[in-house]
Amino acid sequence: MSTTSPDLVHATRGGIVESLHRGSVAIVDASGAVRLALGDIDRPVFPRSACKVLQALPLVASGAAEALQLTDAELSLACASHGGEPGHVATAAGMLAKASLDASALECGTHWPRLEATQRAMARAGEEPGPLHNNCSGKHSGFVCVGCLMARAQGRDAREFVHGYVRPDHPVMREVTAALQAATGVDLSRAPVGTDGCSIPAFALPLRGLALGFARVATGQGLSPEHARAARRLREAVARSPFHVAGTGRFDTRVMERLGERVFCKVGAEGVYCAALPGQGLGVAIKIDDGNTARAAEVVMAAVIESLVSLGDAERGFMRRFSEVPLLNCNGTRIGALQASAGLREALPVS
Amino acid sequence: MSTTSPDLVHATRGGIVESLHRGSVAIVDASGAVRLALGDIDRPVFPRSACKVLQALPLVASGAAEALQLTDAELSLACASHGGEPGHVATAAGMLAKASLDASALECGTHWPRLEATQRAMARAGEEPGPLHNNCSGKHSGFVCVGCLMARAQGRDAREFVHGYVRPDHPVMREVTAALQAATGVDLSRAPVGTDGCSIPAFALPLRGLALGFARVATGQGLSPEHARAARRLREAVARSPFHVAGTGRFDTRVMERLGERVFCKVGAEGVYCAALPGQGLGVAIKIDDGNTARAAEVVMAAVIESLVSLGDAERGFMRRFSEVPLLNCNGTRIGALQASAGLREALPVS
Repeated sequence: MSTTSPDLVHATRGGIVESLHRGSVAIVDASGAVRLALGDIDRPVFPRSACKVLQALPLVASGAAEALQLTDAELSLACASHGGEPGHVATAAGMLAKASLDASALECGTHWPRLEATQRAMARAGEEPGPLHNNCSGKHSGFVCVGCLMARAQGRDAREFVHGYVRPDHPVMREVTAALQAATGVDLSRAPVGTDGCSIPAFALPLRGLALGFARVATGQGLSPEHARAARRLREAVARSPFHVAGTGRFDTRVMERLGERVFCKVGAEGVYCAALPGQGLGVAIKIDDGNTARAAEVVMAAVIESLVSLGDAERGFMRRFSEVPLLNCNGTRIGALQASAGLREALPVS
Repeated sequence: MSTTSPDLVHATRGGIVESLHRGSVAIVDASGAVRLALGDIDRPVFPRSACKVLQALPLVASGAAEALQLTDAELSLACASHGGEPGHVATAAGMLAKASLDASALECGTHWPRLEATQRAMARAGEEPGPLHNNCSGKHSGFVCVGCLMARAQGRDAREFVHGYVRPDHPVMREVTAALQAATGVDLSRAPVGTDGCSIPAFALPLRGLALGFARVATGQGLSPEHARAARRLREAVARSPFHVAGTGRFDTRVMERLGERVFCKVGAEGVYCAALPGQGLGVAIKIDDGNTARAAEVVMAAVIESLVSLGDAERGFMRRFSEVPLLNCNGTRIGALQASAGLREALPVS
């Protein structure tokens, strides 16, 4: 897979590189022109949660968001890998209530919130997680809202209609897959397909196609008018409600709180990160070979944003804290750093 | 660092490799003869917690273990990266009590137990972590025991004497560093040095030297008589009390519960794993380039044990569950697997 993947992130200790992360980066404009290719950008990669905004296009394009009067927070949550914090859980429950349904309609499964502090707070309060705590519950609530509108249009019972919505052949999932295909330009009928963590189909796409999809989200170019409007509405909603797309202390939340609509970035599992940069008209897609998102893909995305987006000095310093991260030990002693590799820095900025 | 590192572990989804882990493996006998070299085994690597048994040699060799009547559980904990479970915490406290000291003597710092279920159980009980919960508290309690004996021999106050034991120039740490150097044959005065997670010095050694150290632990050859006796006693203690070297559900505990003294294996942070195989007279040292221990170094170690150690069919099936690990999603659906790469399987067994 990765004989050509350059090292993108170094973890240092005692003045040497202790560990490193290799990976690939595609930066593409809305015409499909490649502005930067590091590593193999044509190898199929599972985008995982990084493509949630593409999967949420039908929620707006279908008219469901309007019919159900979904708020910015709710649309942001539909694009989210959220932390299962009380504000996320309540917002997902609210989306389902607007569709006259509840958490029992969700087919994403249950996991404890990723953030250990949130887990401990729940344990202290004697709580157990349910499907609303699943980091994908907003995306799934969005799917259920799409299904609710389809059911209404056909005069059918919504609960019955949405059952099985995670299956590839369900009308809701067919819409979602069609949106992913239209945005990325990749023929998904020929793509490797697996099952995602939340049980929906997972298609593997080249980074080139993913980056193109995000360039289209950034610009609207190459999308249908309905999808272009939906992409604009979703970017705007996330910029207005960045807490709901991730959560306390999380990269996507912090960066979009600070930079607003200048960046739409979205994390995925297994070292994937995507971004739409409207000011530059560019899409970005990153895959770390070893699947490490938190300490590798984030650092690469930070370096990309630093390099490509127009930033003031304070904003640049803010981003640098994500691309040069001090590592502290249990006594708070600085023992090293995570940092974008010199090779990555040299490859950026793209012209 | 790793242009030559082969891929050792694959994470699959939908029939393709989603992520992979590259790394290096050294298998060496007690004469220093290399039986297997994958990747660069001469590049310095921080062994982290994988070398705790070498750092515990002075605890036995000095006579401290005998003088303080340390049990198998306590000696096992001195070699441990434990889970901070109640049995670990109580055992560390007991070691310190035998030295007439308490948790306030520990300089390892505090972190929540790694296992999320243990964290939640503590949170439910209204508990907060202290230094005894640190995964290194047994190693540090062992250092304190060594210091206690040194203080007694000099007629000095133990608490005062052990203060600052994590510093490179403290008499206790000088003994520990000397043991690491003697076992591995690496001149640590010329090695890269950083600070470990628990604040003691961290030296970077070639995998070749680390594997040699473990071949010596396996056989006693090449060690001083005191260190050879200490190595045997520590291996025996861990085999008799494998819970204390790691904890519930952990690789080292489960494997040594099953295979007893045939394997001494020890995990380290940042993708390092070491083992002593007494029956084969071999030492093993593994480093995953990207630093992933739990899902990469463990899989490699499992494949090495499967290949090198004399196992019955049931034992082989048991080990295979660590080298071919099904990956399940939130709904319990199998979505892929972690597995030793074909290249690694082909390189093993060594003759």
